[in-house]
Amino acid sequence: MKSSETFFEVSRRAMLSAFAALPALPMLLPSSALAQLPASPVGQTPVTETLPSWNDTATKKAIFNFVERVTKQGSPDFVPEAERIATFDNDGTLWAEQPMYFQIMFALYRVKVLAPQHPEWKTTEPFASLLNGDVKGALAGGEPAIFKIVVATHSGMTTAEFDEIVRAWITTAKHPGTGRLYTEMVYQPMLELLAYLRANAFKTFIVSGGGIDFMRVFTDRVYGVPPQQVVGSSGKTKFQMSDGRPVLMRLPAIDFIDDGPGKPVGINEHIGRRPIAAFGNSDGDMQMLQWTTAGSGAGFGLLVHHTDAEREWAYDRKSSIGKLDKALDAAPAAGWAVMNMKNDWKTIFPFGSK
Amino acid sequence: MKSSETFFEVSRRAMLSAFAALPALPMLLPSSALAQLPASPVGQTPVTETLPSWNDTATKKAIFNFVERVTKQGSPDFVPEAERIATFDNDGTLWAEQPMYFQIMFALYRVKVLAPQHPEWKTTEPFASLLNGDVKGALAGGEPAIFKIVVATHSGMTTAEFDEIVRAWITTAKHPGTGRLYTEMVYQPMLELLAYLRANAFKTFIVSGGGIDFMRVFTDRVYGVPPQQVVGSSGKTKFQMSDGRPVLMRLPAIDFIDDGPGKPVGINEHIGRRPIAAFGNSDGDMQMLQWTTAGSGAGFGLLVHHTDAEREWAYDRKSSIGKLDKALDAAPAAGWAVMNMKNDWKTIFPFGSK
Repeated sequence: MKSSETFFEVSRRAMLSAFAALPALPMLLPSSALAQLPASPVGQTPVTETLPSWNDTATKKAIFNFVERVTKQGSPDFVPEAERIATFDNDGTLWAEQPMYFQIMFALYRVKVLAPQHPEWKTTEPFASLLNGDVKGALAGGEPAIFKIVVATHSGMTTAEFDEIVRAWITTAKHPGTGRLYTEMVYQPMLELLAYLRANAFKTFIVSGGGIDFMRVFTDRVYGVPPQQVVGSSGKTKFQMSDGRPVLMRLPAIDFIDDGPGKPVGINEHIGRRPIAAFGNSDGDMQMLQWTTAGSGAGFGLLVHHTDAEREWAYDRKSSIGKLDKALDAAPAAGWAVMNMKNDWKTIFPFGSK
Repeated sequence: MKSSETFFEVSRRAMLSAFAALPALPMLLPSSALAQLPASPVGQTPVTETLPSWNDTATKKAIFNFVERVTKQGSPDFVPEAERIATFDNDGTLWAEQPMYFQIMFALYRVKVLAPQHPEWKTTEPFASLLNGDVKGALAGGEPAIFKIVVATHSGMTTAEFDEIVRAWITTAKHPGTGRLYTEMVYQPMLELLAYLRANAFKTFIVSGGGIDFMRVFTDRVYGVPPQQVVGSSGKTKFQMSDGRPVLMRLPAIDFIDDGPGKPVGINEHIGRRPIAAFGNSDGDMQMLQWTTAGSGAGFGLLVHHTDAEREWAYDRKSSIGKLDKALDAAPAAGWAVMNMKNDWKTIFPFGSK
């Protein structure tokens, strides 16, 4: 992992650009996490049983308070069901993002798999350095180097082929730190929160800088979020006939970067309605929270603050991945809740902690 | 209307490009149309009562047959509810498109409204000709002329302002031929079909060359299709702060054209799942039908053939708007149903016929 960490020195935007051209994974968390989701509407159970993996802190109370205000008939802040839209960032908000965006791990994996078919890579950068384990050298070329990796490994195939590649990867690829499958590295309290909101007639969307096609393979089974409720970065695709059958080819071109100021744009394009609740963990989520809480009615913004070095990871202002700085400063005046992972969460992952 | 008809001489793509930068309208059809939608699941009512505005022809039988195959437990073609995605074109499929795409009417209206604020338009093309009623002269410049009209009248404002403009327009603008509000020019049999599919757990999406923001103002109330289930052409937008509040500005640039080969691309981006049923009426829908019926399971494609000059309009291969030619030729081999409006529909519009 050591040399790979230099990946972080490349800008977040470059990484997200790479994501856009990447694919999608399947769920492997059989049912342990989902089994713990409340099955019946929250209003029918005592509040204290609703989010069992959350401690009874101010954050949990703020969530309950907001949901009650917008769902209670007669409340001045009541919101009709059709308008109950909640958006969630993915990396660092619904699943872990350390020591590296999981989708970047996929990119590195693909280069290694494809190397035998590309003998020229032995003498061509950024591949030569990468295959020698010198990630820093590979990325000395900056964004163009990343684009070369992405183009070489993740375009020129159909969307269906791409889907299959990610599925194959995700069944075996393990997190380098925990040895767990990536799809197990999800936050149990957030799974409960998703279910709680849906039980209150919210529609839950993922709005992430990650690749839309990459995420869609696993979001339904891991989070209960169907493909049409996933917004992400994307590459261009092209419709064409291949052996008499229509296919969508993945082109070596970025179409949209769903990060920072791009998130409200992606929300408008995909959802067409302003969310009333948004959940993120980095500066890349700030504009989504601004957009969400600037509506005429009630709005709720929450930032996940990674404060638990023991059970998860602790990072914020200085982090090269999931940097939380400007948004953290903006939170008090904006009225956003800042969740403290160490204090607010009883459990981190469905399997426990790191 | 006469001079306006020369609009048709401009390519369909140019018109759709113009749409992309255009806005969104509200529903004014109070409830007459929706009141006729079946409230209970179709399986519980005799088939003959399900689509009352459809005659008992082969087309209706083909629809029933398909829905039964994919919804009946134990059927070899059974499709789980989450995968029951149906996509509908809008212009010419759900509402009329003659004598001109309704969104083009909106564009012309906006030029007239804005003219007093732009004295320079009196001597600047394409506006000068347009204001003199010479649409043909205005469009002599081709696509660049259309883009000028779109840029001048439909960008440089926020998404919220755009929404309001369309709302204001749609409350009074009437169809030049029938004198009816545009939102009344919807097909009663298609409203019933949408409801029938939803009663069978289908999710109904609109996938149209029309502007996504333009359509979203009325699709929920007219068709029961919420904003997040509308796919259309779009212009670029940009997030920015304005007087301390976040807004999305509409930029003078096309982002995506949701027509022809663009439809499967838009479907993949917005829905992330292959539809199992698709409904269109022109060559611009051909690739959507190809994509839909090329899945591994059952797939249904239907083309609305405008054959009723008396009650609606009759046009197909030679039409400059809603041209149905290649798709009509492809239908038999592809197994797509071709609906004959004159024979298959008992009623055309909620208010009767033209």
